[in-house]
Amino acid sequence: FGAPPSTDPMWGYFTAIAGQDGEIDAEELQRCLTQTGISGSYTPFSLETCRIMIAMLDRDMTGKMGFNEFKELFAVLNGWKQNFMMFDQDRSGTVEPLEMSQAISSMGYRISPQALSCILKRYSKGGRIYFDDYVACCVKLKALTDNFRRRDTMQQGTVAFPYDDFILCTMAI
Amino acid sequence: FGAPPSTDPMWGYFTAIAGQDGEIDAEELQRCLTQTGISGSYTPFSLETCRIMIAMLDRDMTGKMGFNEFKELFAVLNGWKQNFMMFDQDRSGTVEPLEMSQAISSMGYRISPQALSCILKRYSKGGRIYFDDYVACCVKLKALTDNFRRRDTMQQGTVAFPYDDFILCTMAI
Ligand SMILES: [Ca+2]
Ligand SMILES: [Ca+2]
Ligand SMILES: [Ca+2]
Repeated sequence: FGAPPSTDPMWGYFTAIAGQDGEIDAEELQRCLTQTGISGSYTPFSLETCRIMIAMLDRDMTGKMGFNEFKELFAVLNGWKQNFMMFDQDRSGTVEPLEMSQAISSMGYRISPQALSCILKRYSKGGRIYFDDYVACCVKLKALTDNFRRRDTMQQGTVAFPYDDFILCTMAI
Repeated sequence: FGAPPSTDPMWGYFTAIAGQDGEIDAEELQRCLTQTGISGSYTPFSLETCRIMIAMLDRDMTGKMGFNEFKELFAVLNGWKQNFMMFDQDRSGTVEPLEMSQAISSMGYRISPQALSCILKRYSKGGRIYFDDYVACCVKLKALTDNFRRRDTMQQGTVAFPYDDFILCTMAI
């Protein structure tokens, strides 16, 4: 992220939409991502998915995203897109539950069969997982895991959550 | 829920869509709720909101909903709709953040200003909260709080979550 913004091709997309305050909300992020063409031939991201993308990176909790976070998001999304295309071997535009569970473990998450089964039901439509839902699932899994790890400072695998912190960690994503 | 299903007016909506297995998934729930007209003049529920409605009541984790859960959902939704209409005093079809925070405390949730501020940003569009997002917020808050309380058996206000249980409690809603 070292280049001066003015020479960065994404700076144009971003500033045209962000305006003076230099931050974008979920509806602006949706337009911004559509303009960059990152969804390719897949359906553009839903507003819901854009909302949790913002929540994933919104450490100062303003509900908005600056240019550096936008670039960070863009890099993460590109990784997930590569992954999705790799697992969608027949180019149907969807991955199937078994492939999704392989994708999740390839990202390094260790999840029980029960939790995995819940996740697959939640993010599939008619037994298939579309790109937007795939990304929504990746965003949530990353954000929840990051929130958990940030609190699991001794790496014990268990975190004591007071109610309010539990809500804070989960309601926005 | 004591009436025999065949004399219950909602049984017709439900069975027409559920078919032989007597269970509905998120897309069927969306059609079912639209047919009952519960959204009234508001926009029908989004698929996302229907997905978390199912997760909220899906104690056996099949990803689907039977008739009794459908009726339970319908009763809860009617309560939230009354509440929404009461707080939307100017009949604009939206509630504003301050009214939303009053609605949340009127439901008995005790939430810090910081968590509340996150919630209001997450569920509003252009500074207003629409019915579908209002319900999504209520569903999530109820489901997360229920999951928390079920584990807080000593009512200490803090729960020790192993990573996998944390994911199980939060990924589907
Ligand atoms: Ca921010
Ligand atoms: Ca495929
Ligand atoms: Ca209003």
